[in-house]
Amino acid sequence: MKVYFAGSIRGEAPNKEWFHVLINHISRYGKVLTEHSFGFPYDEEIKFDDHRIYETDIVWLRDADALIAEVTAPSLGVGYEIAKAEEWGKPILLLYKERLERKPSAMINGNKNLKMVKYNDDQEALKAIDNFVKKISE
Amino acid sequence: MKVYFAGSIRGEAPNKEWFHVLINHISRYGKVLTEHSFGFPYDEEIKFDDHRIYETDIVWLRDADALIAEVTAPSLGVGYEIAKAEEWGKPILLLYKERLERKPSAMINGNKNLKMVKYNDDQEALKAIDNFVKKISE
Repeated sequence: MKVYFAGSIRGEAPNKEWFHVLINHISRYGKVLTEHSFGFPYDEEIKFDDHRIYETDIVWLRDADALIAEVTAPSLGVGYEIAKAEEWGKPILLLYKERLERKPSAMINGNKNLKMVKYNDDQEALKAIDNFVKKISE
Repeated sequence: MKVYFAGSIRGEAPNKEWFHVLINHISRYGKVLTEHSFGFPYDEEIKFDDHRIYETDIVWLRDADALIAEVTAPSLGVGYEIAKAEEWGKPILLLYKERLERKPSAMINGNKNLKMVKYNDDQEALKAIDNFVKKISE
């Protein structure tokens, strides 16, 4: 199984350590196409060619069997990828860490075609991945 | 002409005064469907029903003749709307205010199907709207 993992890179402060935990967890079940996208410090990453990033990522997304996105931090690219995956009929899992006085995007949370799991502790998110993979593998 | 204006609401700190300037400017040319979406303080806005927001906005987006999005502040909803508008073949104008040590989303900036105008002063953004409207009205 090929999974496209999405999370903020240039958007609101990404939690890279947590993304790596998620990627490692997903890797138990298959290949995470975007694994290496999260391995660069901000200052380095922004020097990459945007067109090349887009071309690589969009091919990966089309090729993926599923999209798993961490949507706690706002990100234009992640929102874009969610809509593309929805249009292309991919199974989608969205993970959102509950925060006081914040609410997830209404366009994402209010869309009943999308499954958003709101978690309080990390184990819930990992469990949601297990359930999601199990369901789409049936 | 009906224009869907998009900008961060629950994403990274939106510049609401600036959004209102943009909306007023676009209103010279037609109806801004989302005009009232930017009229609420954060604490009030997050009390609205997300499903209702989604249902209203997605109908407006489908109905719009064009999308104009201010993409300086990262936002999942705005990214989502850009991808939907692209899939649905709508003319799209993206406005991004240049900031030191920041770069726009690679997925958006690197996509050659999307036109992103990077502006330094407000007049450039307003002029970009004029040019965009003129072009799609031809």
